Amino acid sequence: MKQSKDKNIRSELKKLKQENKRLKVLLHLADNLQAHLDLDKLLLTTMQEVAKILDADRCTVFLLDEEKQELWSIVAMGIEKGKEIRFPADKGIAGHVAMTGDILNIPDAYQDSRFNPEIDKKTGYRTRNMLTMPLTNRDGIIIGVFQILNKRKVAFDQSDEELLAAISQITATTVENSLLYEEQVESLNSFVETLSATLDTRDYITAGHSRRVTMYTLALCEQMQLGENPCEELRFAGLLHDIGKLGIPEAVLFKAGKLTEQEYAIIKRHPAVTRQILGNIHFPRKLKNVTEIASTHHEKINGNGYPDGLQADEIPLGGRMLALADVFDALTSYRQYRDREAIEKVWDIIEKESGQTFDPKVVQVFLKTPLNHLIEILEHDQKDHLDHQDLLKLAPHTFSEILKIKRGRIKKLTTTQKNLEKLFDKYYLRKYMPA
Amino acid sequence: MKQSKDKNIRSELKKLKQENKRLKVLLHLADNLQAHLDLDKLLLTTMQEVAKILDADRCTVFLLDEEKQELWSIVAMGIEKGKEIRFPADKGIAGHVAMTGDILNIPDAYQDSRFNPEIDKKTGYRTRNMLTMPLTNRDGIIIGVFQILNKRKVAFDQSDEELLAAISQITATTVENSLLYEEQVESLNSFVETLSATLDTRDYITAGHSRRVTMYTLALCEQMQLGENPCEELRFAGLLHDIGKLGIPEAVLFKAGKLTEQEYAIIKRHPAVTRQILGNIHFPRKLKNVTEIASTHHEKINGNGYPDGLQADEIPLGGRMLALADVFDALTSYRQYRDREAIEKVWDIIEKESGQTFDPKVVQVFLKTPLNHLIEILEHDQKDHLDHQDLLKLAPHTFSEILKIKRGRIKKLTTTQKNLEKLFDKYYLRKYMPA
Repeated sequence: MKQSKDKNIRSELKKLKQENKRLKVLLHLADNLQAHLDLDKLLLTTMQEVAKILDADRCTVFLLDEEKQELWSIVAMGIEKGKEIRFPADKGIAGHVAMTGDILNIPDAYQDSRFNPEIDKKTGYRTRNMLTMPLTNRDGIIIGVFQILNKRKVAFDQSDEELLAAISQITATTVENSLLYEEQVESLNSFVETLSATLDTRDYITAGHSRRVTMYTLALCEQMQLGENPCEELRFAGLLHDIGKLGIPEAVLFKAGKLTEQEYAIIKRHPAVTRQILGNIHFPRKLKNVTEIASTHHEKINGNGYPDGLQADEIPLGGRMLALADVFDALTSYRQYRDREAIEKVWDIIEKESGQTFDPKVVQVFLKTPLNHLIEILEHDQKDHLDHQDLLKLAPHTFSEILKIKRGRIKKLTTTQKNLEKLFDKYYLRKYMPA
Repeated sequence: MKQSKDKNIRSELKKLKQENKRLKVLLHLADNLQAHLDLDKLLLTTMQEVAKILDADRCTVFLLDEEKQELWSIVAMGIEKGKEIRFPADKGIAGHVAMTGDILNIPDAYQDSRFNPEIDKKTGYRTRNMLTMPLTNRDGIIIGVFQILNKRKVAFDQSDEELLAAISQITATTVENSLLYEEQVESLNSFVETLSATLDTRDYITAGHSRRVTMYTLALCEQMQLGENPCEELRFAGLLHDIGKLGIPEAVLFKAGKLTEQEYAIIKRHPAVTRQILGNIHFPRKLKNVTEIASTHHEKINGNGYPDGLQADEIPLGGRMLALADVFDALTSYRQYRDREAIEKVWDIIEKESGQTFDPKVVQVFLKTPLNHLIEILEHDQKDHLDHQDLLKLAPHTFSEILKIKRGRIKKLTTTQKNLEKLFDKYYLRKYMPA
């Protein structure tokens, strides 16, 4: 009797230890997954963690796209970068599980008729065993599928299934939170993009202006390696910098002839109106500088700009970047009844204003813009006409190289330089018919 | 030796059981908190759950508002409704903990000089013991404070502190996620509100129009008890229904005299442009009908509206509600050099169009609008002039009552009716100076 009691205690001890281990794993996972609201990062972390927990080789989380009736997932490509894969929601084993809610535990894939060996053939991977389980939210709705491949030593057993069921619940909620967050982000994003484009097209002369200014600014951002968040602020500021023009009567804004002094004074109100409008918007903390950047795009570093006559570093770096992008776009855009200004003349004007209107550091960085980017931005409204091969040829060269050629500062052009000029001219000097 | 071994096993068993219980509690909490992205609901749930887990009477979570340097929390007021309290971030015991990161475990509050008994005096509550601990995120930054009052049987001990520390980590992440989500929601919201108001004020004649149309529609929504989500869709649709006017030249849109047929045709494009613009925005799933509702506000139930000539139920209910609100606002707004149209004449026009332009069911519901709401909306731009006492007197009466009085359908008015008419006229017939 004593012995049997001992045995019971030992068995209870063992069970408790296993249960504790399991709970710790789940708690750690819950804690770990919560740290990511960004969906891509969340999915990649989930897949890594779950493979580790189940001692398996791979784990994929497929999410169900209700609207398109597709399953999709991201594939890890290096650290934290994801690529999407998609297929019809009823296809394959994952599709079967998504449609039926069944749990499929297949100990030997090549002995199972439902398994499609084509993917292994393509990828060179060898699937031995697989566990596929629905990802079900707390309302019991299937929102995706877990697929786990190649348990390291043996096949997946009952306890793996139980553990994965508990994991599924934790994962489903974090994924749903992340989806809700992402759709809000995407909503604000598309709202700003759409509004910006709509305001630009009120007058076809400025069509695409804000978009191109944003692209030039982001190209500067990349050269200066400012990091993800400042670039995101610049993107919003670029798209919205002219929103204040909503406060300027069209009769003045779009006047064809020369503006009177009074009319010019009215137009000059627009950055202040931009500040006023954007100042009423509660941007997320990470976008808190958008208003300040957007509303300083007409300041000059010599203090002669508007609305506040700020000088040098008083103007936020983003505002100084926007100022250059804004003028560069104005000088290089097609205008009614005329082609683009010659690029060397454009840059003469910019250089003359370097140290006056523009921050010389920003002007220098602009010269490093890769030529493929420059052409892509210049021709953004005509991007269907861009030849991918041409862009690849332009990519190794910078804006400063084409300027040297165009300014005639090179005594004898090499064949490469001649070809580069020809390629640049093909796009820059293209005859353009206004719509 | 055998006995000591037994004792060890028993002690281990006990420890494991405690650990097991603790882990289950934490996992349940993590799972439970994750279910709420809405910050108010999350905080209320956290406070309830944590009080339960620590067997205490009350738990409050104070969050640190970095910008204002204040601690704030919500107070439960019935189910799921919250009211905010705020105080300087360095005040009281919570403030001390927020500033220093100390854990304060006070076994007898009235014996501790740091305790402020004033609050007990005011509320009639009797604080015995309290545990106050920082809420620290995974970067080690204090984002708030837990304050737990009155452990039920004894005072808080070491194991309570440890448990709360683990709870703190789980809570901090969910709270931060919720804050990130809420600031995105608020961002889209304020963007739409600001844009709507900006577009309205392009012409002072329509100033406040979209806001008022939205308010009338929400008043209908309330009478019809459509639920939270449809009302939210209607709010966005109301604020954005005229965004398509961005695509109409101001020279036509704001023309003072009579429009030519061609100009009228141009103006009539605006709901289609609204659809086009909003169609480019990826609204969150719960706002998926905004575009359809906003772009059908000029459809008529007899099929003679535009842009699609939809009939009856082909027009979404929200579109039918907007249609009435839109016309009602146009008829009751102040216009340049004239006062408001008499309300009985306004309603004659609406009733004539009931069954033609308007859905008769919607027209009937509009008559039930409480008079205080109606006046608040009509005078929204002048709301500083509204007398709260007047609004209380108007509240028990509906729009249909004032109409009966105004239409002379009551042979002899009671004193109440006479007073009601006087009060309504005080606002409706107020002389108004355009800005």
